Amino acid sequence: MMEFKISNVEFAKAVSEVSNVVSNKTTQPILAGIKLIAKADCLILIGSNSDIVIERKIPIDSEGLNGCKVYKTGSIVISAKYLNEIIKKLPNEIHLKVTENQSVIIQSEDIITKLNGFNSTEYPSLPYVNFSNNIRIASDALIDIIKQTVFASSQNESRPVLTGVNFSFEKNSLTCAATNSQRLSLKRHKLNSNINGSFIVPNTALIELVKLFGDCATEIDIFTADNHIVFKSNTKSLYSRLIEGNYPNISGLIPQQSSTTVTLDTKRLLKGIDRASIFASEWRNNNIKFQVSEKSKVKISSLSSEMGQIEEIQDIKNISGDEELNITLDGKFMIDALKAIKEDEVSICFNGSMSPILIMPVGNPSHLQLISPVRSN
Amino acid sequence: MMEFKISNVEFAKAVSEVSNVVSNKTTQPILAGIKLIAKADCLILIGSNSDIVIERKIPIDSEGLNGCKVYKTGSIVISAKYLNEIIKKLPNEIHLKVTENQSVIIQSEDIITKLNGFNSTEYPSLPYVNFSNNIRIASDALIDIIKQTVFASSQNESRPVLTGVNFSFEKNSLTCAATNSQRLSLKRHKLNSNINGSFIVPNTALIELVKLFGDCATEIDIFTADNHIVFKSNTKSLYSRLIEGNYPNISGLIPQQSSTTVTLDTKRLLKGIDRASIFASEWRNNNIKFQVSEKSKVKISSLSSEMGQIEEIQDIKNISGDEELNITLDGKFMIDALKAIKEDEVSICFNGSMSPILIMPVGNPSHLQLISPVRSN
Repeated sequence: MMEFKISNVEFAKAVSEVSNVVSNKTTQPILAGIKLIAKADCLILIGSNSDIVIERKIPIDSEGLNGCKVYKTGSIVISAKYLNEIIKKLPNEIHLKVTENQSVIIQSEDIITKLNGFNSTEYPSLPYVNFSNNIRIASDALIDIIKQTVFASSQNESRPVLTGVNFSFEKNSLTCAATNSQRLSLKRHKLNSNINGSFIVPNTALIELVKLFGDCATEIDIFTADNHIVFKSNTKSLYSRLIEGNYPNISGLIPQQSSTTVTLDTKRLLKGIDRASIFASEWRNNNIKFQVSEKSKVKISSLSSEMGQIEEIQDIKNISGDEELNITLDGKFMIDALKAIKEDEVSICFNGSMSPILIMPVGNPSHLQLISPVRSN
Repeated sequence: MMEFKISNVEFAKAVSEVSNVVSNKTTQPILAGIKLIAKADCLILIGSNSDIVIERKIPIDSEGLNGCKVYKTGSIVISAKYLNEIIKKLPNEIHLKVTENQSVIIQSEDIITKLNGFNSTEYPSLPYVNFSNNIRIASDALIDIIKQTVFASSQNESRPVLTGVNFSFEKNSLTCAATNSQRLSLKRHKLNSNINGSFIVPNTALIELVKLFGDCATEIDIFTADNHIVFKSNTKSLYSRLIEGNYPNISGLIPQQSSTTVTLDTKRLLKGIDRASIFASEWRNNNIKFQVSEKSKVKISSLSSEMGQIEEIQDIKNISGDEELNITLDGKFMIDALKAIKEDEVSICFNGSMSPILIMPVGNPSHLQLISPVRSN
């Protein structure tokens, strides 16, 4: 018979954050719900799918300053879709009350909604995690690491380990790596860690994590358990299932030398490849031709199609090694790679037209990417 | 062998405006193109589909102030999709040249694009219109009239005349009307007209007209021909096919009396119906119940569903006639109707639960709407 009052704005934000992960396509209607728990000192909202659980806490200020007040403690599960749609359309303070038979009454001004809830004891409990051993990281650093790696993971379930990002903790560092076997992105970050080990986190969970923590700078504690990893701030927790299996050995893939290395302007190169992709998209592999022909010039072009072709010349800021080069690359992979780089200049190492290229931001050795060339005919 | 230079920004805007109406789903590739004509004093761009032609003129300033210069006059047709994508990605002044075999070379800085064009003589010519008899109207007034009527037209081709808006010109007025036979919107506008007659303009053309003239305040001249209507400013023209047939007689449908008339706050009513529609959308007709029960109060509710229900009470500002009323309405039609009203208060006239309701903004007799009730069980 729980009952509480809360600001419509704060409740709408929390409901929306939690309902992000809840799927409507579930065989059990209760799993399409949000679990609401009213305690003496906080409201808790929980939403989940088969991979991810999000827990959101709204602390109750004893002074009632944030407009939240619990009259009766208790818990209920309510359809995420309807709760989300209703709450965001209510004009003012919300008064939520559970009556008999899991019936939920939500009132705001002269607007009264009745929703049929579910018995909260039938909602799955949170995964068991021992919250003692943690690693602490700033949310903006963690989000940068994820954004710079997760795009390179695979969308294809045929090799499940590749659909995740590998988090590898050593004494003083975290290394994140993702690959779909044609491209790879790797990012190192210094931190104090008392955890050792590798964990493959599903890319879907990391995309939700960026949404959940993207709008506020906070500290995030990372905890691990046998099958789960938890990312936790004061008010938000994201539990993710881990992907089982062994992540491929990355370090052996990174070339230690190059036959040609060029330095280019990152934004200009990105724009050039984006333009060349206009025609390349007619082809299966978004093929872009990349040629070093004259010293200090690079030509970017799409293979000519029925409709037309495009080519452009860009200045090379620096070149070492062989000054003749001709390679065909997947334009989409190149665009993703360059978008992940914040630095003004990028250095690209080549080992002929058949070997993967190595892309590194100039002045930042913590991040590197590999892209395999396309075998053109 | 035409050749010209133009500012990339201005050209991109014009190409985008014209390509809006060009469809890629055409059996003749030339019809998916934009016709470019370079004259001594202007550039002309033309794009079309089976209902609509848009003609866009870029005047050439003899001082070269707008960066446009024609070196050789001529004309060509270029794929709208590729031209649009390329031009918006070019960084600087554009140099366009047609060489042998309709080959088009577009250069900007060190970026060179080659496109295969089409012989412009094979592109359909503009519909014949006698540009003498015109009606002049301000673009913002015309756009308001269209926005307040076009939504009520039919999406269903089974009665083609209902897929258009009926423009009826009399000596001193234009009356626009649209109906899908369940709802109707009518707007009168005063103007000096030397045309008499009715023209049914396809709703698709009017939606394009709003896009084309929506961003600039200008004078629009309207011309009519046997099968076409033209909306024309200094630099833009939209030619639309007319729908053949007789438009239904509207004036007989408008009730001259009412059993109950209520005045409500427009925005608040809109929000209330939007909220009630959360559950109503589970039903075929978005059914919303509207009840006057106590004097000066109205209850808006959705029919209860498996998931829940919502109801709210709103104050009536004014009521006359019978104070008992119970009617079921299509929530989506009500939302569209109220969104078309700018005035703060709206007056609704009822004639029992089986007759259409009449919606009028308070203080503006030039606009009225009808909505038929849903037969609830």
